[in-house]
Amino acid sequence: MDTPIIAITMGDPAGIGPEIVVRAMASETVRTVARCLVYGDARVIAQAIRDSACPLQVRCIARPAAARFAPDTIEVVDFANANPAQFAPGKVQACCGQAAWDYMEAAVQAALRGEVAVVNTAPINKEAIQAAGVPYIGHTEMLAGLTGVHDPLTLFETLGLRVFFLSRHVSLRQSCDLVTQQRLLDYIERCHHALAQLGLGGELAVAGLNPHCGEHGLFGDEEVREIEPAIAAARRRGFQVAGPIGADSVFHQARMGRYAAVLSLYHDQGHIATKTLDFERTISLTLGLPFLRTSVDHGTAFDIAWQGKASAVSMIESIRVAAHYAPAYRRAQLAG
Amino acid sequence: MDTPIIAITMGDPAGIGPEIVVRAMASETVRTVARCLVYGDARVIAQAIRDSACPLQVRCIARPAAARFAPDTIEVVDFANANPAQFAPGKVQACCGQAAWDYMEAAVQAALRGEVAVVNTAPINKEAIQAAGVPYIGHTEMLAGLTGVHDPLTLFETLGLRVFFLSRHVSLRQSCDLVTQQRLLDYIERCHHALAQLGLGGELAVAGLNPHCGEHGLFGDEEVREIEPAIAAARRRGFQVAGPIGADSVFHQARMGRYAAVLSLYHDQGHIATKTLDFERTISLTLGLPFLRTSVDHGTAFDIAWQGKASAVSMIESIRVAAHYAPAYRRAQLAG
Repeated sequence: MDTPIIAITMGDPAGIGPEIVVRAMASETVRTVARCLVYGDARVIAQAIRDSACPLQVRCIARPAAARFAPDTIEVVDFANANPAQFAPGKVQACCGQAAWDYMEAAVQAALRGEVAVVNTAPINKEAIQAAGVPYIGHTEMLAGLTGVHDPLTLFETLGLRVFFLSRHVSLRQSCDLVTQQRLLDYIERCHHALAQLGLGGELAVAGLNPHCGEHGLFGDEEVREIEPAIAAARRRGFQVAGPIGADSVFHQARMGRYAAVLSLYHDQGHIATKTLDFERTISLTLGLPFLRTSVDHGTAFDIAWQGKASAVSMIESIRVAAHYAPAYRRAQLAG
Repeated sequence: MDTPIIAITMGDPAGIGPEIVVRAMASETVRTVARCLVYGDARVIAQAIRDSACPLQVRCIARPAAARFAPDTIEVVDFANANPAQFAPGKVQACCGQAAWDYMEAAVQAALRGEVAVVNTAPINKEAIQAAGVPYIGHTEMLAGLTGVHDPLTLFETLGLRVFFLSRHVSLRQSCDLVTQQRLLDYIERCHHALAQLGLGGELAVAGLNPHCGEHGLFGDEEVREIEPAIAAARRRGFQVAGPIGADSVFHQARMGRYAAVLSLYHDQGHIATKTLDFERTISLTLGLPFLRTSVDHGTAFDIAWQGKASAVSMIESIRVAAHYAPAYRRAQLAG
């Protein structure tokens, strides 16, 4: 059976994107599990190949259908928009923000046309994007804007531990305010649909908000007031959901295979679990879109860009995870 | 050089304490790093030995000085207060709560007299303790009461990651309220003294409270208003302290050796990090006492007690960690 075709966006040319893309494409794991092509600048990729001394060559292609996926070649849908002689490594530059946006826009369009199964994104820089006048502040907003999907769902996966988030970039106090029956019920339903998109059955575990889930209201009553009623309501609707389960054990239990995923109740709750477990192997998936999107969970790392220091472990892992889920995602799309 | 003498309290006789103590005492690791004796009931330990088929025998001793530490023997300071024929495994019983308290009280007295270097505690049951009319609700309160140390400091250690807690059994909302300059400054100072007691130098990292440390007040201002000023004040007083550092990376960085320990700002922040990293190898140390106290971080597990199912991994690890730090702790005590 053919392996899935994955479009990898090169990310900000001045960041670590180009070098980790090249090193990932040189990896045996990646070559085995997927057929990858890069949305980027061929000169930048060629430079990154020279710097990393990988035995690869560049081949420019106009569109995914032209790809041959030869093992010694990186095929690039070439935008010729980032001349290595004209941008500075490790700096915020409008030209690089614009270039990164060009790759993203085209890769998403290719995915919407069904030419690639997955969009895997190398990091972009918010300030560079802003300097270029791009009307989105990050990847998730770009994806929402380009696909018309209002609020895509983020899933983190680390060594088989899967974590959703009830809220993300709000203060810890505000994230407590967002723990409401209605929001929980909505997310439990969305998480189940997202797991089904990945071909995963099983139970979703909802983490507690307070230590030991508040010990029956002794310290914190959100479990009694909001979380337990939401779980009961979700069960009445037929969803397999457990909890609330103390945050000090739910992630361990999920990792041991007891739950298909955990719904964490605030940004750091899920981030601490996944990134402490394995920082480099924490992968981000964006679900609810017409195609699968995966990503590393690190930034452009301007401080070490183009110095040969960046690790490609996350990029390789994000491609491995993408390839693993792509067939199920496609089946779910076809099934409607 | 002689290995440290560790008093192990047997914990609630109806819980998993006796069996994990026996299995730990049979472990080569434990025999190599420490000289252990048990505060408990000799009949209960003998029963646990028979159940686990360990090639060990029991020897009753009146006090630590009488111990010989022969490799095939478990020496028990015997309270003869828990007859296996008279208590039921896996149940809350006043007699078992009383017995557990007797072991604890005597072990602490022995440590205060300098007869043992460490008190390592097997789990007790809060309800059983309460049923027995013991005037403390848990180990930490017992330790405070018996030693006169007002507020001992808890440190978790997991695979070399060390974590302190700014607050513990309060709601998440209240833990936000407790993030104040004054409290942080006090804890930074206490954490440094605690690290010195363990012979550890290096920098203490303070975790952030909000996602990405609030991104300069964009979502949550505790970092700007309380945490940064507290760290600046601590530095002016000469303490090596870094932060605030985003909770999604500070535990990883500390584990990689960049920091001696992390001061986490709420119960679950530190618990998620340590217990997701390695649930069974998360060990609790109580510092600020005249002797070192270590403990497993699990309960009596009445549901599996006396069924041969309980894992001794935590107990073995808690003894290994105790033995590791005992010499430094003793030197720090002598240095005053």
